[in-house]
Amino acid sequence: MTELNITDLELISENKMFGGLQRVYSHPSRVCNGPMRFAIYLPPAALNGNKVPVVTYLSGLTCTEDNVTVKAGAQRIASELGLIFVAPDTSPRNQNIPGEDDSYDFGSAAGFYLDATEEPWAGSYNMYSYITRELQDVLSANFSAADMNRQGITGHSMGGHGALTIHLKNPDLFKTCSAFAPICAPMSCPWGEKAFSGYLGSDKALWENYDATELVKKSPSSATLLVDQGSADTFLVEQLKPELLKKACETSGQKLTLRMQEGYDHSYFFMATFIEDHLRHHLNGLS
Amino acid sequence: MTELNITDLELISENKMFGGLQRVYSHPSRVCNGPMRFAIYLPPAALNGNKVPVVTYLSGLTCTEDNVTVKAGAQRIASELGLIFVAPDTSPRNQNIPGEDDSYDFGSAAGFYLDATEEPWAGSYNMYSYITRELQDVLSANFSAADMNRQGITGHSMGGHGALTIHLKNPDLFKTCSAFAPICAPMSCPWGEKAFSGYLGSDKALWENYDATELVKKSPSSATLLVDQGSADTFLVEQLKPELLKKACETSGQKLTLRMQEGYDHSYFFMATFIEDHLRHHLNGLS
Repeated sequence: MTELNITDLELISENKMFGGLQRVYSHPSRVCNGPMRFAIYLPPAALNGNKVPVVTYLSGLTCTEDNVTVKAGAQRIASELGLIFVAPDTSPRNQNIPGEDDSYDFGSAAGFYLDATEEPWAGSYNMYSYITRELQDVLSANFSAADMNRQGITGHSMGGHGALTIHLKNPDLFKTCSAFAPICAPMSCPWGEKAFSGYLGSDKALWENYDATELVKKSPSSATLLVDQGSADTFLVEQLKPELLKKACETSGQKLTLRMQEGYDHSYFFMATFIEDHLRHHLNGLS
Repeated sequence: MTELNITDLELISENKMFGGLQRVYSHPSRVCNGPMRFAIYLPPAALNGNKVPVVTYLSGLTCTEDNVTVKAGAQRIASELGLIFVAPDTSPRNQNIPGEDDSYDFGSAAGFYLDATEEPWAGSYNMYSYITRELQDVLSANFSAADMNRQGITGHSMGGHGALTIHLKNPDLFKTCSAFAPICAPMSCPWGEKAFSGYLGSDKALWENYDATELVKKSPSSATLLVDQGSADTFLVEQLKPELLKKACETSGQKLTLRMQEGYDHSYFFMATFIEDHLRHHLNGLS
């Protein structure tokens, strides 16, 4: 179902970069109850009439579509490899929900890539449906160069959690998956506990549906997950917990390449260092 | 003369990136009358005890040391080539001069890489001396890996003006030079006229000392200047005027590689696209 047509897209900015075009669009979203933004890089191959694979990048807490677009250097390698690189915003905005802008880790810029069931969030905080359905329709309807049958998903921190869980629940839609310093077990860390309590309520059976470590136990995918994690990341022990994901992968047979990167922190300096490896991982899995 | 010793440097941040270290320092500056910041990327080769070339990047209007550090992707290629990449701030700060923060193109973040002669700017707005003397002393005293005999200079927009003029006046200090969308003839454009009037007064003989097109006529260097300019840059016609620099180079015999880049604008998306070419240009000239 195509919910939106091309006339609903508003071009916010366009800049030439590495021979391709970096654009930002706004469009009305039904599942998020208002306008949503996403950035999209169209490599030269896409501008020349080819169908090319699509990699969607999910950003972390406090981010918009802008952070990865200006900081990661992803366009250079997307240009070289011939990949469309999509970076959506991280939550609905301006919902007039009391407290939506009060915390860096809940509400605005903290959508956690789930569909909220608790009020007052349930009517708009539906980033899971946005990424897996609505944005899919928008991309498919408006970008003929996007090969929707060859898609990968990646992300950083909260977005790494999103990439892992969305891949595991939709392995035929997003066939490849990687993550930078992901929240690997949100049911077992303060960020996840706060978000899941607020968006999903107290029924932990619902929580398991959005926890990568739990999902891996129940339904591993046939892909190899690539995860990079900095050893000097100040969130590593309390919030990220890749050891729990690793153990679950070993138990369930999920293939995982977990690389502990000595001395790297949680920043985009870390993420920019390894984005080339990740995009090559996706291209290899989608070829 | 070493004006400052290592204990005067305050480390503001440090992040591992591409195997090297991205640092930001603050230090007291005499010529700028207060603390100044600069970013420095130390590639793996520098951390392993080698003496490596140094490329200084001068930023444009409104920038700090942060913009190029997070947006350009320069560290990736500096790591590969083994270059120290230095990015100073663009002006003194917090001088309590009336109006210093009122304009984007004069005062704070608009130092124009000259030594002001007009009050109240003359006591602090001395970015020319800062780049060519004081920062040199700081780098030499504190970074043993920096080969001060192999230095290049580059920059963007106002910083491109700075790179061209500082190279032409100091070809033995900064042996190589390149620029991204530089202000090529500040005496002949609104940005330059405003800045030179304010910092230097009405004597245009003083202005010529900081105008790349005028300097090329009088004292060309033996280096080849590399200049990239986007054809879709909205400042091209009124402010940047590479055609005047080109004509002066042809007249004086200054070697110039001026590349008009079709469809690129004035942003860091443009600059990031071509930074690899520029750093290779510097390494080639410094080897």
